[in-house]
Amino acid sequence: MERSNVTKATLGRLPQYLQFLNGLPPGQYDHISATTIAKMLSLGEVQVRKDLAAISRLGKPKVGYRTSELISDLEDALGCKKLTPAILVGAGKLGRALLDYNGFEEYGVQITAAFDCNEQVLRMNKTSKEILPISLLKKYCTENGIRIGIITVGSGSAQDVCDQMLEAGITAIWNFAPCQLKVPDNVLVEQENLALSLAHLNSQISK
Amino acid sequence: MERSNVTKATLGRLPQYLQFLNGLPPGQYDHISATTIAKMLSLGEVQVRKDLAAISRLGKPKVGYRTSELISDLEDALGCKKLTPAILVGAGKLGRALLDYNGFEEYGVQITAAFDCNEQVLRMNKTSKEILPISLLKKYCTENGIRIGIITVGSGSAQDVCDQMLEAGITAIWNFAPCQLKVPDNVLVEQENLALSLAHLNSQISK
Repeated sequence: MERSNVTKATLGRLPQYLQFLNGLPPGQYDHISATTIAKMLSLGEVQVRKDLAAISRLGKPKVGYRTSELISDLEDALGCKKLTPAILVGAGKLGRALLDYNGFEEYGVQITAAFDCNEQVLRMNKTSKEILPISLLKKYCTENGIRIGIITVGSGSAQDVCDQMLEAGITAIWNFAPCQLKVPDNVLVEQENLALSLAHLNSQISK
Repeated sequence: MERSNVTKATLGRLPQYLQFLNGLPPGQYDHISATTIAKMLSLGEVQVRKDLAAISRLGKPKVGYRTSELISDLEDALGCKKLTPAILVGAGKLGRALLDYNGFEEYGVQITAAFDCNEQVLRMNKTSKEILPISLLKKYCTENGIRIGIITVGSGSAQDVCDQMLEAGITAIWNFAPCQLKVPDNVLVEQENLALSLAHLNSQISK
């Protein structure tokens, strides 16, 4: 199954399906239909059908999906069977908040370490994960096969951090700094703009 | 101009236009065309034309927009002329990161205070803004006409916080807790799912 065909909206609903299926009483649901799932989760039937079609083979008419197979396909699509390690550069408040956030593992990603150049941050580490000096970035990424990097430094140093990540073999970047990163064509960048959601709410209530 | 007609994607580009126009050498650009703006910002001309049409009256053929008018319309659309105050409940790492983030004001919103029920958080406040006990929420919101609330508590207490916000007169909620909030129809909720961007990156590199 090509995981890259799964849209972000579908991806967002997969954990809900997985949680639901894993919570079914054992032995009672060998098979389950998209209709049943839709009804029990109060979702549109067409949507559920499309979502499941994107990550699994079609269910059989009248019978639906074999539950164990669907669970396995959902886990595949979410990458739960094997967590992808990621690192973060910039262990300020936002970086540390992400480092302590548990919700990423549900989506198959685990932030395994953070890097910073501020000595004080390194000494004062109160998170459960390692915060290492930025000088160790390349060594760590190479040794641990890291391909995903998260940038939570200010926009002034974001491009510099990005360049160091590329040199360390990272090919996918989640950028929280409010600036456009220059990267080669084969590198993916997901630009996060936290202010935008708030601005959108504001524009809606300001009618 | 109806601000609510502006899509989130357009909204995201408005600060870039505003910054660009404000940075033009004084006196040289009484008028400016969408074509010029598109070229200088390396954006598609159709997109720029649509974006500007959503927030301003149409520019004149061959002449374009009167620059001062366009700046004023952009400021209106972004709400820069009058900052909308917002509050936040849950002054943990993520809450404090948002509290210290300056990028919201560019989009017309200012987080003026945070609330928490943890005494230690209240005493140890190292941010530049007030962190108040949650018992003062209603009083503060009423006195300051707050309509936007941000939830950065865990999913266990999110609905309780939401209910308190509604009672305090808040009509728009930005929810970082990974749970569905129950609200009346006239209340807007923007659900934030931070894990999703990371999951999307992961699914793209895992082809």
